[in-house]
Amino acid sequence: MSVNFSEADKQHMALAIELAKKGHYTTSPNPRVGCVIVKNHEIVGKGFHEKAGEPHAEVHALRAAGNKANGATAYVTLEPCSHYGRTPPCALGLINANVRRVVIAMVDPNPQVSGNGIKMLEDAGIEVSTGLLEDEALALNPGFIHLMKYGMPFVRCKLASSLDGKTAMASGESKWITGALAREDVQRLRAQSCAVITSAQSVITDNAKMNVRWDQLGELKNSYPKDNLRQPVRVVIDSKSRLTPELEFFSIPSKIIIIGTGLENNHTWPHFVEHITVKSVSGQIDLEDCLQQLAKRGLNDILLECGATLAGAFVEQNLVHELTLYQAPKLLGGDGKNLIETPSITKLSDAKQLSIDEMTMVGNDIKIVAKLTEK
Amino acid sequence: MSVNFSEADKQHMALAIELAKKGHYTTSPNPRVGCVIVKNHEIVGKGFHEKAGEPHAEVHALRAAGNKANGATAYVTLEPCSHYGRTPPCALGLINANVRRVVIAMVDPNPQVSGNGIKMLEDAGIEVSTGLLEDEALALNPGFIHLMKYGMPFVRCKLASSLDGKTAMASGESKWITGALAREDVQRLRAQSCAVITSAQSVITDNAKMNVRWDQLGELKNSYPKDNLRQPVRVVIDSKSRLTPELEFFSIPSKIIIIGTGLENNHTWPHFVEHITVKSVSGQIDLEDCLQQLAKRGLNDILLECGATLAGAFVEQNLVHELTLYQAPKLLGGDGKNLIETPSITKLSDAKQLSIDEMTMVGNDIKIVAKLTEK
Repeated sequence: MSVNFSEADKQHMALAIELAKKGHYTTSPNPRVGCVIVKNHEIVGKGFHEKAGEPHAEVHALRAAGNKANGATAYVTLEPCSHYGRTPPCALGLINANVRRVVIAMVDPNPQVSGNGIKMLEDAGIEVSTGLLEDEALALNPGFIHLMKYGMPFVRCKLASSLDGKTAMASGESKWITGALAREDVQRLRAQSCAVITSAQSVITDNAKMNVRWDQLGELKNSYPKDNLRQPVRVVIDSKSRLTPELEFFSIPSKIIIIGTGLENNHTWPHFVEHITVKSVSGQIDLEDCLQQLAKRGLNDILLECGATLAGAFVEQNLVHELTLYQAPKLLGGDGKNLIETPSITKLSDAKQLSIDEMTMVGNDIKIVAKLTEK
Repeated sequence: MSVNFSEADKQHMALAIELAKKGHYTTSPNPRVGCVIVKNHEIVGKGFHEKAGEPHAEVHALRAAGNKANGATAYVTLEPCSHYGRTPPCALGLINANVRRVVIAMVDPNPQVSGNGIKMLEDAGIEVSTGLLEDEALALNPGFIHLMKYGMPFVRCKLASSLDGKTAMASGESKWITGALAREDVQRLRAQSCAVITSAQSVITDNAKMNVRWDQLGELKNSYPKDNLRQPVRVVIDSKSRLTPELEFFSIPSKIIIIGTGLENNHTWPHFVEHITVKSVSGQIDLEDCLQQLAKRGLNDILLECGATLAGAFVEQNLVHELTLYQAPKLLGGDGKNLIETPSITKLSDAKQLSIDEMTMVGNDIKIVAKLTEK
């Protein structure tokens, strides 16, 4: 099915990818998908998926194309779906519109349905080719793809420190290590995530709310009206049942999941709070079970924002896939608080290895994005 | 004297700067200087200063130009000297060659002679203008300029750690945190420096030699023949007189300075070892006095390569001007050794501030160059 693609093919698929990115902050937990329809070298329709429950990218593009879809080529960043869900299968939509050719950037990552959409199209006599700008398409949906392939969410751990890897002075003083622009960048990370995980410790000690704050979104403010802001699900790990509904965390009325070990609590919680009980392993919460519970709820792209101990536990258990590290141009000295605690790592050969994907300045701070690599 | 320069002026000065860079690894402790001579839009001579004791850039360029220097324009990255040193004044050379115009990137940074060369040229009727590509010219010689302006050397501190700011495991295991290409880069930092400062601790514990190793210079090997390699002066701070001549450090026959507090020692030292006694302050060596001693010897561009404690002491006393930090893409965890110890910094407002100048990948490692900034 993989073929040599023309320059025009590449340009149209590149446009489809750009369209898909428009859903970056809104499609969760659905994938970001873009679609472009071309007839006689002319773009006759384009669309992207904006929000779960709303039409898929192909539907928008086909509507825009109307009769011109007849005999056209459709470029779509993800294999069109073949099942009846909240919307009819997109493959059927393309067949009914009588398109001649479909170019797909990546096949469906779910091994159980992968290829079904392509087969439906080919059975209808449509020419299908795949793999054009596949890497770019993969990068659109790390969470969705990870969940489909492995049944587990993609976890991005956000950390911030000085150049010498310290997050606070010995006294605990830490406001602010990084600058306002780096903190805005974190707001955007939250805004793109299905869920944010934090610890009861952070919620209690720092009175953290962990929500997306519209006025700190920077340029994104122009694209997302204040009253229409999607909040990530806020997940808090509370192994000792220390949370109480009076905390500021609960003052924002958006979905919260409290993950505990089943200890009783007699509080009355707001309606948007769900309690989940997971296994515990020698008094510690089973983090893999936590993530499985989130996966069951379709939460695929997770931002981990917590202190050195919990972040270290996730890292030690190889449950973190990507690190986003902000480094302020400061030296705090050896007495400061450590970035991450991983007590099980005692030999250099056991140190966690990463590969650097991105290195940029955000204001005066350094932003490093790195993948945790298997050894 | 500052004027609007033409595009041709800029191109010729840019060439002079490129020529100056050819002396990057050889001129110490002299400045890197380049010169281009242009007659009727044609480059008729060019040169750069290669090595202390050898001709200055202007001499090389005037020799190449010969009679064509008559009526020409000379572009030189640093104000021509006006004094009789090991060579006659370059200003006089330009006058005798009958050049018509001299364009200078930066004036002599030594306040006591700054402007003298220009005056000598102007008194001879030559048109002089200054300030063209001044920033680029300043960047050629941070050490030379710093010494001339402030009477103290420019100090660059090299550190290497994991992404979480650790230099070794708790056990001390640290070979190797960074990769081979980062270590090659450090060899080039040594090769460009007048002197390298380290501690007796490093020399004894790590058996460090601190010399430039030709086979680890990477691409520089092609430019610098093995037997003709300039070694930086190796300076070792030994407050407790613990060094002995049997250490590997002394097996390399190039200039060494041992800085101590005057404690007696009965060893017989090789001829290339000089002992300097400096003041001590409550049992600690006076680091400012150390640097003054090096300044007196003309050592202006210093690389500090030592452990967390000595590096921290230099930083605490505001004696470091630039940090070169290599970060390996690893997480070692909170039990690891800290990058830098600065016990006097206890409040966030006292944390040392930096500004990032450069951020690049060296192999799989991150290289950050940052200036320490005054508050």
